[in-house]
Amino acid sequence: MNAASESEPSSPLLVAYQGEPGAYSEIAARQVGRPAPYRSFVEAFHAVAEGDVAFAAIPLENSLGGTIHENYDHVLQFPVRIVAETYVRVEHCLLGLPGATLEKAKFVLSHPQALAQCDEFLAARPNLEIVASYDTAGSAKIVRESGSALHLAIASEAAAVHYGLDVLARNIASRENNITRFAVIQSARPNVGNADGLSRLLAPLADRPRKTTLAFTLPHKTGSLFHALAAFALRNVGLTKIESRPYREHAFEYLFYVDFIEPEELGLSVRALDHLREVTQFVRVLGTYPCLSAP
Amino acid sequence: MNAASESEPSSPLLVAYQGEPGAYSEIAARQVGRPAPYRSFVEAFHAVAEGDVAFAAIPLENSLGGTIHENYDHVLQFPVRIVAETYVRVEHCLLGLPGATLEKAKFVLSHPQALAQCDEFLAARPNLEIVASYDTAGSAKIVRESGSALHLAIASEAAAVHYGLDVLARNIASRENNITRFAVIQSARPNVGNADGLSRLLAPLADRPRKTTLAFTLPHKTGSLFHALAAFALRNVGLTKIESRPYREHAFEYLFYVDFIEPEELGLSVRALDHLREVTQFVRVLGTYPCLSAP
Repeated sequence: MNAASESEPSSPLLVAYQGEPGAYSEIAARQVGRPAPYRSFVEAFHAVAEGDVAFAAIPLENSLGGTIHENYDHVLQFPVRIVAETYVRVEHCLLGLPGATLEKAKFVLSHPQALAQCDEFLAARPNLEIVASYDTAGSAKIVRESGSALHLAIASEAAAVHYGLDVLARNIASRENNITRFAVIQSARPNVGNADGLSRLLAPLADRPRKTTLAFTLPHKTGSLFHALAAFALRNVGLTKIESRPYREHAFEYLFYVDFIEPEELGLSVRALDHLREVTQFVRVLGTYPCLSAP
Repeated sequence: MNAASESEPSSPLLVAYQGEPGAYSEIAARQVGRPAPYRSFVEAFHAVAEGDVAFAAIPLENSLGGTIHENYDHVLQFPVRIVAETYVRVEHCLLGLPGATLEKAKFVLSHPQALAQCDEFLAARPNLEIVASYDTAGSAKIVRESGSALHLAIASEAAAVHYGLDVLARNIASRENNITRFAVIQSARPNVGNADGLSRLLAPLADRPRKTTLAFTLPHKTGSLFHALAAFALRNVGLTKIESRPYREHAFEYLFYVDFIEPEELGLSVRALDHLREVTQFVRVLGTYPCLSAP
């Protein structure tokens, strides 16, 4: 099936995400169109590359957890490009069936990372036994299906709405500023990406600044990064992210991810990339895109 | 209690790690001394800062999952320094009680990330129901305590040894090159860090090259990173890692982590740091250290 042919021009396009309904990724997908859940990131990438969905909303980094290398690897390996970015604030809530209370409950379910992020809240409530589960929204689903006020879940408010649960406590994480950055990606294959859908998504964002995300490799040689960054610095092109990692495909090479703000001067960014190609072995532009919703 | 005073000179010193016995972190801790488990990273950092243990082995980054920002934050905030680094290869195994088989089993337990990393192996065995748990080694413990051949766990071979389980399958992850980098940290408080223990740890590594890990902040201004990296490039000091992240403490600033190889020329690295301080707002050296065990 092809999302381009099956959708009416005015109906929201399908947006793949990894997880259950109510997941933080679903909140990102809903900013773009109609969320379509997939069990794994690989399945979401396959779906968008092959045109089963118009877009996918993929987490690239989290302010506490860091860059998700696995998803950068998928963006590099699948025939896709980044067409927008968006941010979702991770706000963990304690959820229970209507009538459930903190006093009556015996178990609290969530993904181990969410449980760890709420460690102070949980430490102050030793009557709650902690149970790990596959994901945050999935925990809300289990609580709904259990039908029991003994079980609570830590998940998003969206998960509470989706599964008909009450929010017993809000913002229970120990640390604030837990924000996830998502890439909205589309197929780069000819005749697969939904051009109309993309125009509709981007039209209201035409005046916003745009970012470009690049991957490039450098030999493990003193000063090679400095020479590569000169391509941007000497043209006053500002970077907003840089990250290195050892490139496992070729020993003694490093893979870099760089985001830069697209300069207003016409042709400047093309000349910066030409310069970068002179001093690097491999450069790939993963996308040039605006921001849907700032953090 | 103070590890420095309670240990005999020849007995292995205590090394804090997060997780259960058999965790990948315990493998790292064992390279340094006698592993001491803690439930959370924060508790492990407290233990080492206050001298309850001589060292802690803390994961900083993983080749698939990326940098663990949370632990860099702890290294910055606690009075600790990095005294060595080490690498542990993550090799997921399928474990069961003696006599258990893949055919008879009904459930497989592990941390969601380990389950996701073994997705192809599990997809080919639909008879196994997947159950999320708090950590990999904890899953092995649950299987041991269940006493049932219906339950299997995905964890390290060290967990199999610790809990008396059989290894039913080895290297079941979909992707190779899953390596975690650990920092060995010690208290930076006067009279708390174990100086004798540190000397014994580092003596056999005296001839190895050393790395320095830095954190510094830069204003969000075009070219500021280029100017900062000049401090290294103009002196032929090679970087092995660079990573940026928005610095939440101060808006419009970026926090950078940089690793560089200590140059042999005496005084060169001090001059590079002096130069760096001229063009940055905040610089902190997190440690200068050798590698215990390469990847």
